[in-house]
Amino acid sequence: MTRPPLSPTERSTIQRGKQRAATERSDLDDVLDAGLICHLGVVVNGAPVVLPTCYGWQDNTLYVHGSTGASTLRTAIAGAEVSVAITVLDGIVYARSVFHHSANYRSAVVHGRARLVEDPDEKLCALAVITEHVAPGSWDYTRGPSRKELAATSVLALELTEAAVKIRRGPPGDDEADVTVDSCWAGVLPVRQVWGEPEPCPLLPPGVAVPSHVAARRASVRA
Amino acid sequence: MTRPPLSPTERSTIQRGKQRAATERSDLDDVLDAGLICHLGVVVNGAPVVLPTCYGWQDNTLYVHGSTGASTLRTAIAGAEVSVAITVLDGIVYARSVFHHSANYRSAVVHGRARLVEDPDEKLCALAVITEHVAPGSWDYTRGPSRKELAATSVLALELTEAAVKIRRGPPGDDEADVTVDSCWAGVLPVRQVWGEPEPCPLLPPGVAVPSHVAARRASVRA
Repeated sequence: MTRPPLSPTERSTIQRGKQRAATERSDLDDVLDAGLICHLGVVVNGAPVVLPTCYGWQDNTLYVHGSTGASTLRTAIAGAEVSVAITVLDGIVYARSVFHHSANYRSAVVHGRARLVEDPDEKLCALAVITEHVAPGSWDYTRGPSRKELAATSVLALELTEAAVKIRRGPPGDDEADVTVDSCWAGVLPVRQVWGEPEPCPLLPPGVAVPSHVAARRASVRA
Repeated sequence: MTRPPLSPTERSTIQRGKQRAATERSDLDDVLDAGLICHLGVVVNGAPVVLPTCYGWQDNTLYVHGSTGASTLRTAIAGAEVSVAITVLDGIVYARSVFHHSANYRSAVVHGRARLVEDPDEKLCALAVITEHVAPGSWDYTRGPSRKELAATSVLALELTEAAVKIRRGPPGDDEADVTVDSCWAGVLPVRQVWGEPEPCPLLPPGVAVPSHVAARRASVRA
């Protein structure tokens, strides 16, 4: 599927820290792949509400899901504008001055009107996409959704066209004066997410091995 | 300082997954201490905008800061409602059914009207609080903010009274039918943030040791 370039609307054009703006569609894809959860923002009774939730994405569409009873999701379903942020923290930047302390990160903020996914085929596909993002391999390995479970789940779709991607990498950006006169340490303390040892469900019969899709993920970035 | 209990307003009362609601003020403190970044939501031209940013907190106040030129911050400064979410992801919950897949997490969503910090003493104190949250030890170790740097920085304060804290821990919550008939693996794959090896600034003269406050943090949770 052709992926349109990132849209240069006013709100998706980075105003502050322009040198950190990433404008390639592949930059957005990288952030979406690297993130595990997103923060969904909606307006409820005139006030913003930000909630963490799971997501998945495919081609040009971001999917989030939730209970049909969730008020934030119901608001978004009504065709309202939403904002979805995905942030990957990569490190803390220790500068020579307090002012230049910063974080290394990759972030994407997607704007648009959410669309309720009503087509049964697209809904099932979207749930597969979300499941495979959160827990790769689980869609085929575990019991699929029943009709009742499908009915209890709302899925929202958001086009990935209007998005601001921001990336900060590298050492502190101290003022020259601080670099020459100051001899204090400066640098980056990297941070990353790692997987721990799988914790089997207590109700599991003895002898059920950790399946390969879980073991492989665990091995990919281990503590 | 006395900390008021969490406020039971409609929007800060958890409607979905009530069993995950945490209502002790100490639960909020724990999430605020565990998080490294927050997601700030504001309404700009009627639409929500969610942005990742750094924060700090003290007693009953959450502080975020940013450039005086940032439009989201200017909006929030105008006395508008904001929503700030802090989320710590603790694991992916692999259930026996797709439907019961979940995440273990600790989250706090704070609502309220942001207040621009104008008093110079409070502003300096707030910046110290933010700096010490992001990079403990840096406030005393590095050069403090100049008058010009202070003028270029906006600090917003948000009272920690109206907040929803949600915590999910433990194994999957599968349906009984799936537990008895299904023999597929289920459990939790823990995830956590760990610190990597400090990366010294390339402009640093040789022989500048990693200071104790950075080394101690690195050692606290290491990869």
